[in-house]
Amino acid sequence: MTFSHDVFLSPFSWRYGSPEMRQLWSEARKRQLWRRIWVALAEAQQAAGLVTVQQTADLRARQDDINLERSLQIEAEIHHDLMAEIRCYAEQCPIGGGIIHLGATSADIEDNADALRLRDGLNLLLDRLRALLLALADRIESEADHVCMAFTHLQPAEPTTIGYRLAGYAQDLLADYENLRRARGQIRGKGLKGAVGTRASYAHLLAGTAMTPAELESRVMAALDLPAFPIATQTYPRRQDWEVLNALAGSAMTIYRFAFDLRLLQSPPLGEWAEPFGAAQVGSSAMPFKRNPIHAENLDSLARFLAALPRAAWDNAAHSLLERTLDDSANRRLILPEAFLAADELFLRAQRIVAGLRIDETAVRRTLDTYGVFAATERLLMETVRRGGSRQELHEVIRQHSLAAWEEIRQGKPNPLAGRLSADESLARFVPAEETRALLHAEDYIGDAPARARSLAGQIRAALNP
Amino acid sequence: MTFSHDVFLSPFSWRYGSPEMRQLWSEARKRQLWRRIWVALAEAQQAAGLVTVQQTADLRARQDDINLERSLQIEAEIHHDLMAEIRCYAEQCPIGGGIIHLGATSADIEDNADALRLRDGLNLLLDRLRALLLALADRIESEADHVCMAFTHLQPAEPTTIGYRLAGYAQDLLADYENLRRARGQIRGKGLKGAVGTRASYAHLLAGTAMTPAELESRVMAALDLPAFPIATQTYPRRQDWEVLNALAGSAMTIYRFAFDLRLLQSPPLGEWAEPFGAAQVGSSAMPFKRNPIHAENLDSLARFLAALPRAAWDNAAHSLLERTLDDSANRRLILPEAFLAADELFLRAQRIVAGLRIDETAVRRTLDTYGVFAATERLLMETVRRGGSRQELHEVIRQHSLAAWEEIRQGKPNPLAGRLSADESLARFVPAEETRALLHAEDYIGDAPARARSLAGQIRAALNP
Amino acid sequence: MTFSHDVFLSPFSWRYGSPEMRQLWSEARKRQLWRRIWVALAEAQQAAGLVTVQQTADLRARQDDINLERSLQIEAEIHHDLMAEIRCYAEQCPIGGGIIHLGATSADIEDNADALRLRDGLNLLLDRLRALLLALADRIESEADHVCMAFTHLQPAEPTTIGYRLAGYAQDLLADYENLRRARGQIRGKGLKGAVGTRASYAHLLAGTAMTPAELESRVMAALDLPAFPIATQTYPRRQDWEVLNALAGSAMTIYRFAFDLRLLQSPPLGEWAEPFGAAQVGSSAMPFKRNPIHAENLDSLARFLAALPRAAWDNAAHSLLERTLDDSANRRLILPEAFLAADELFLRAQRIVAGLRIDETAVRRTLDTYGVFAATERLLMETVRRGGSRQELHEVIRQHSLAAWEEIRQGKPNPLAGRLSADESLARFVPAEETRALLHAEDYIGDAPARARSLAGQIRAALNP
Amino acid sequence: MTFSHDVFLSPFSWRYGSPEMRQLWSEARKRQLWRRIWVALAEAQQAAGLVTVQQTADLRARQDDINLERSLQIEAEIHHDLMAEIRCYAEQCPIGGGIIHLGATSADIEDNADALRLRDGLNLLLDRLRALLLALADRIESEADHVCMAFTHLQPAEPTTIGYRLAGYAQDLLADYENLRRARGQIRGKGLKGAVGTRASYAHLLAGTAMTPAELESRVMAALDLPAFPIATQTYPRRQDWEVLNALAGSAMTIYRFAFDLRLLQSPPLGEWAEPFGAAQVGSSAMPFKRNPIHAENLDSLARFLAALPRAAWDNAAHSLLERTLDDSANRRLILPEAFLAADELFLRAQRIVAGLRIDETAVRRTLDTYGVFAATERLLMETVRRGGSRQELHEVIRQHSLAAWEEIRQGKPNPLAGRLSADESLARFVPAEETRALLHAEDYIGDAPARARSLAGQIRAALNP
Repeated sequence: MTFSHDVFLSPFSWRYGSPEMRQLWSEARKRQLWRRIWVALAEAQQAAGLVTVQQTADLRARQDDINLERSLQIEAEIHHDLMAEIRCYAEQCPIGGGIIHLGATSADIEDNADALRLRDGLNLLLDRLRALLLALADRIESEADHVCMAFTHLQPAEPTTIGYRLAGYAQDLLADYENLRRARGQIRGKGLKGAVGTRASYAHLLAGTAMTPAELESRVMAALDLPAFPIATQTYPRRQDWEVLNALAGSAMTIYRFAFDLRLLQSPPLGEWAEPFGAAQVGSSAMPFKRNPIHAENLDSLARFLAALPRAAWDNAAHSLLERTLDDSANRRLILPEAFLAADELFLRAQRIVAGLRIDETAVRRTLDTYGVFAATERLLMETVRRGGSRQELHEVIRQHSLAAWEEIRQGKPNPLAGRLSADESLARFVPAEETRALLHAEDYIGDAPARARSLAGQIRAALNP
Repeated sequence: MTFSHDVFLSPFSWRYGSPEMRQLWSEARKRQLWRRIWVALAEAQQAAGLVTVQQTADLRARQDDINLERSLQIEAEIHHDLMAEIRCYAEQCPIGGGIIHLGATSADIEDNADALRLRDGLNLLLDRLRALLLALADRIESEADHVCMAFTHLQPAEPTTIGYRLAGYAQDLLADYENLRRARGQIRGKGLKGAVGTRASYAHLLAGTAMTPAELESRVMAALDLPAFPIATQTYPRRQDWEVLNALAGSAMTIYRFAFDLRLLQSPPLGEWAEPFGAAQVGSSAMPFKRNPIHAENLDSLARFLAALPRAAWDNAAHSLLERTLDDSANRRLILPEAFLAADELFLRAQRIVAGLRIDETAVRRTLDTYGVFAATERLLMETVRRGGSRQELHEVIRQHSLAAWEEIRQGKPNPLAGRLSADESLARFVPAEETRALLHAEDYIGDAPARARSLAGQIRAALNP
Repeated sequence: MTFSHDVFLSPFSWRYGSPEMRQLWSEARKRQLWRRIWVALAEAQQAAGLVTVQQTADLRARQDDINLERSLQIEAEIHHDLMAEIRCYAEQCPIGGGIIHLGATSADIEDNADALRLRDGLNLLLDRLRALLLALADRIESEADHVCMAFTHLQPAEPTTIGYRLAGYAQDLLADYENLRRARGQIRGKGLKGAVGTRASYAHLLAGTAMTPAELESRVMAALDLPAFPIATQTYPRRQDWEVLNALAGSAMTIYRFAFDLRLLQSPPLGEWAEPFGAAQVGSSAMPFKRNPIHAENLDSLARFLAALPRAAWDNAAHSLLERTLDDSANRRLILPEAFLAADELFLRAQRIVAGLRIDETAVRRTLDTYGVFAATERLLMETVRRGGSRQELHEVIRQHSLAAWEEIRQGKPNPLAGRLSADESLARFVPAEETRALLHAEDYIGDAPARARSLAGQIRAALNP
Repeated sequence: MTFSHDVFLSPFSWRYGSPEMRQLWSEARKRQLWRRIWVALAEAQQAAGLVTVQQTADLRARQDDINLERSLQIEAEIHHDLMAEIRCYAEQCPIGGGIIHLGATSADIEDNADALRLRDGLNLLLDRLRALLLALADRIESEADHVCMAFTHLQPAEPTTIGYRLAGYAQDLLADYENLRRARGQIRGKGLKGAVGTRASYAHLLAGTAMTPAELESRVMAALDLPAFPIATQTYPRRQDWEVLNALAGSAMTIYRFAFDLRLLQSPPLGEWAEPFGAAQVGSSAMPFKRNPIHAENLDSLARFLAALPRAAWDNAAHSLLERTLDDSANRRLILPEAFLAADELFLRAQRIVAGLRIDETAVRRTLDTYGVFAATERLLMETVRRGGSRQELHEVIRQHSLAAWEEIRQGKPNPLAGRLSADESLARFVPAEETRALLHAEDYIGDAPARARSLAGQIRAALNP
């Protein structure tokens, strides 16, 4: 059962996502988890006196000896992957083979295994997200005071700081982190509840023993370190998949936004930010400014894919008719792994981008010099009016200078506005030239943004090291 | 500005949703909230010494005197709804009019008002959802022991109880309730942060006073009883809209599933459940079984609409470029009210259905009698084998009787299986006829489902009365 | 039945969309269409001898006298809008009242009326789209030779022309137009097929007359000028709604892209394009460059909303269980009108933007001067190599000059590259300075883009005037 | 480069979809297509005199000798799959290697190859869909007269025929077929248009030859048998992907509906239809009725997945900023193959289900006997009124009998209504008993449904053999 590039191979098998995450969503891992659950079940049944020590020992001994070739061979005959795995396992276990899966329904095994995969997947993603958040916190702190031009409607507006802008992504991402943590904390298995969720088969099996079905479930789930839903049908509630995929899609949303901003800021007419690049990657040699933001574009591309998946999970949950229908099965083989692998790639790649984010101080300053002074005229106007000037008259004075300055900028010249205004006599009657220059200094028109950016970085560190 | 049915009128204006929710998302309410925020701002500025007692008193006095006709008239001239409202308000306030909105940017007012609407909307929905959950808890308890046939793949499987099935919806809906509560608890306004989120304009305004911009924000938000995001751009993070709409879409998912099951169970060949109907609504008189589940169909229809909306919120958040772009504005006028109004209708209507849910005891029993005994043969087989019978041999005996019984059922006759099996001699060698009848009694093959259903009802009550 | 701004009113009732489209989706229009169908039915039945001339004359006489107040009053009692309209109409028609709706099922009326609304809506949208395409064709032609910088990855790449870029939107929009035209041409009604689509009730009614049910349907549909699906269940196939909404969502996609590009190009660091604005709207007076692209943002916002709607139509069609379920009903009252009204607004507003699109020649040239010469160095290199230069050596020469030139640009100076290269001796050995200048002239490095742009404009005109 | 089940492997690599389709979307095939385009380009350039006969011969000779191991090795160094393939190919071609890709930009190769894959994929799907439609046509014809009960709101309504119901799916699927055919017919490549779509590089290259860039493109595209878009940017318009995926999602919608209906009808309380099953698959032996509709569930599951993908294509097209951004790239590696592979599986599996669809005549009759007569009382009432009976009085008579009959049915007895009504004296005064029985015979209350079903089957055959 090997595959090569002469058939379709998902890019998640080789291009995107980490080896750990690819392994987690492999057939091999799934079957290891199944066996782990069968062993836990047998051990609990041994405690109830239904199964012998020898039988559980036999199962435990071969627990990790997955033989996928044999399992898939059997599956090809009987068209049922879990039953095939039982037979394969049983062939390996002459003593315990007969009691594998005793009293269980397929979904008792599959759905607890799926919950374990969700949990392990979330654990892995939480690690990645912590690294990303810490990288962000570092950059927020180092750029907290770095003044740059802020844009609304893609138009220069007023100054802000780079650290403050980064803090905006970080605040959202921290909310994503809390969502993922909560989703992780809420992962529950189906428990052992049988064909329709009543535990009837276990009740019958345990009749005459000292163990209740609830105790059997508790023992098994304790061995798996996984809580169980109190109520289940044949499966765990599919709502859980939706919650998890939504949490992933939320982080994708934040990363999408960051990556889009980066792509805008990396456009040479702005050129303020750039994703990291190696020496080899330096754009075209003849076009030294040309640095395609391919990593940021990749983030947006995968985030957009991930955004489409929660809807399929919604549909699965909404159409789990009565005690279960199987119309979730085929697409869960796609949407669960692909969502986790997409998130995995997003977090890893975003972390690398944030850690290596290049900020072009010259470009930042150029934008600020070009547009910041216009924004600062508001402050000058307020001040002249406060000192007795006529709002209407001075507004017109400033407007005329602004128009003239903008005309020069359009012709590629530096912004002459500060000079013009500090030389204007009608303004000088109220505010002396050098004070005018100070008021037009856009860089200190940033309120308490730096302090709040730093505070958010602190909040991240606190949240990650509770 | 009145509208009649000769233009398109949203069904949410007159067909679906409650008067309270329609009012909450009206232009009138929006402007009331704006004025409330302007008054709170003026009061805080008065404390800073920027505004006089008379000015705030003047504003406070006319706070509720919305004059939509005048505002819309001004808006028609200047194409800006918030500026128009300021002018309208100012016309009413000769003393305070001039200081309305002092130092503020439009989004300082709008986005706090939007957050208040989200909060008020969630509060209203939480009330509705509590009523729905309590109705469910009542029915779970009263139906906890009511045995019915469970279906997997839409095929009769094993017995369960009606209360246990209801507990499945309730468990999901309780999770939805927690999501809504959390969303409600996390609602935050933008605070007062100005054009790009730095608070620069407030810092300049407060320079020389004893108040910091942070204190000004605290005072205003305290007056609104609304926390603020530490970091904002021109707007509050649009991620918040997505979180809220997702929580609503989650509840829609659970209600969709319940309504779909109800529609299946109301189909006459099953006929076990029916939504409540008045005497007047009793189907066609000539077709007494015909009772169209129009309320359940309505739930599914609106839930499906609601499910489409979070994606637009995802897009808005993902594309909030740099310090804000306005490509969220037009669709937020649609998706926010429509999502809340759809949820409002869903919760109210679902509550009425659950409270008045009709269960046809005869039909429930008929299904159970027809299919339950088949499921119970598993128990009989286990018992005969336990007492020394040959699994293979007796399995074949049961299979033959089952096939014969099913043939009779297909011809519209009652299920003869219990009779056939208890009369079979090869079985009687191991299990006496009357014990066979007992083992085939499907109704006690329900594990501990009733107890767990009751426990979940208790959990609901505990969660609602913390 | 009038509504004011103290309840939620859809922005499509007053902000977005045209009066014509709002009227088309009104309750009043719907009922007019119902009556038109009832009259057509009666006339056909008169031809079959089932109904008298007097009866049809009576109905025809009152056909347009909608009395919504009375209809809604009746609906409040009987909870069925169509039956209420019948009663209202019957009250107005003492002679013909009794034979309204003879042999018909509600959906025979409603679904033909809905098809008529889809058709009329598409006709209106096709007019709008033609106007938009013509506006585009005009601009393509006038800007076909206007060279500007093209961007890939948001990085300056090579030159193109403004007309060619516009032709890209136009080519897509022409495909959208063909889709809408096809959708329009394929609109079909349910015809007259009764409760489950068999025409059984009409067959019974017409038994003994000379008319077949097929002829009855033909007559009625001919009167409505609407073809009918050969096969229908209780309703017309809901697939039709999906086709129509998809066609609308497709145009939204093209307009979204155009509007997004416009927003980027209107950003002052580029500043090449701007949406039209009145004198009154000229941004902030102190920030003369600041022109928020609010119309383009509005387009993107509504397009994003529209993009979410086809999925609900997919769901409706996919879940039309057996001969119909009603889970489409409530959301069709939303998605059909809202999709048409959103498209209406998109087409109208996009047309105004295209017609009034401002192109800043200075800015276009500035970008070209800054970046175009870099792109053109490729041509210079090719030429020097062709004349015997060493590729590797001269490549390095150009690279060094490019880096130096870029450094000056970053400091806000004009691009010195053409000067540097034409003064370079190692290059001059192969290509004389003035030829170098010519080769570096980016403006003629545009292939046959202008001709193809013009040709596409011609194709548009041909398609619109077949 | 082989992969085994210890990493995630898409189910489309081994579970779902056909070998042909998996191969079509393989890396190997993609590179074969690239080479085919490079050869076609070289041949056209040879005609222009830019390339020698020997060079093209060299390339042609090694055209099919893909060496993926080597290519991926190079890609690992240079991180660009197409450039790596060029180098690998060039290593194989000592003579022609240097002129591979002459004047081309990556997307000139990639986007034409992608268009070829779309076209080949659609061709394959059209074959599958034809087989499915023919299977449907066969069943429509054989079941055209087979009367069964129709359901609205999942409630028994009036009779229809099985063939007519199938014709409903077929009519939709024929529309899907036309959509796919049109999509197939409209597939266009990018042509040869260079970095930003202007053909500037080709114009420069061909300067001095007798060939225009337009002719070069024509020659290459003729060799590929693929038309080209007149206008392109760096890529072909991404709108094309959306059109194709939408056409696939449309067919998925129709198949989803068919499969859902089948799942309902296979539920034992109805039990009228069943998907085919082998002897081995016969449900549980003890529960002979239990036949899980796993194939139909699989269809619904994959259709639901496919339905989520067009939205990602919409986003890609809508965000193709300016002359192209790369945020489409990563997700196109997923959505294009997965959509085609899902459709492939859907069509193949649906064809098997339709061809082997089991119809349980007994069950069909049982439902009809139980519910049909109720529907037919309408006809009886009409007839008695026509003969002078009082509508009100006789309506009540029928109502009473209906209620009593329904009570017996609820208790599991056969429907006694026909007997009761034909024995009723108040009815017999107008209609003799045996005529009453005839009128109550639901089976001929089916209008002209059979004829129209047959006609649709004919329409399918005509459409498939034009």
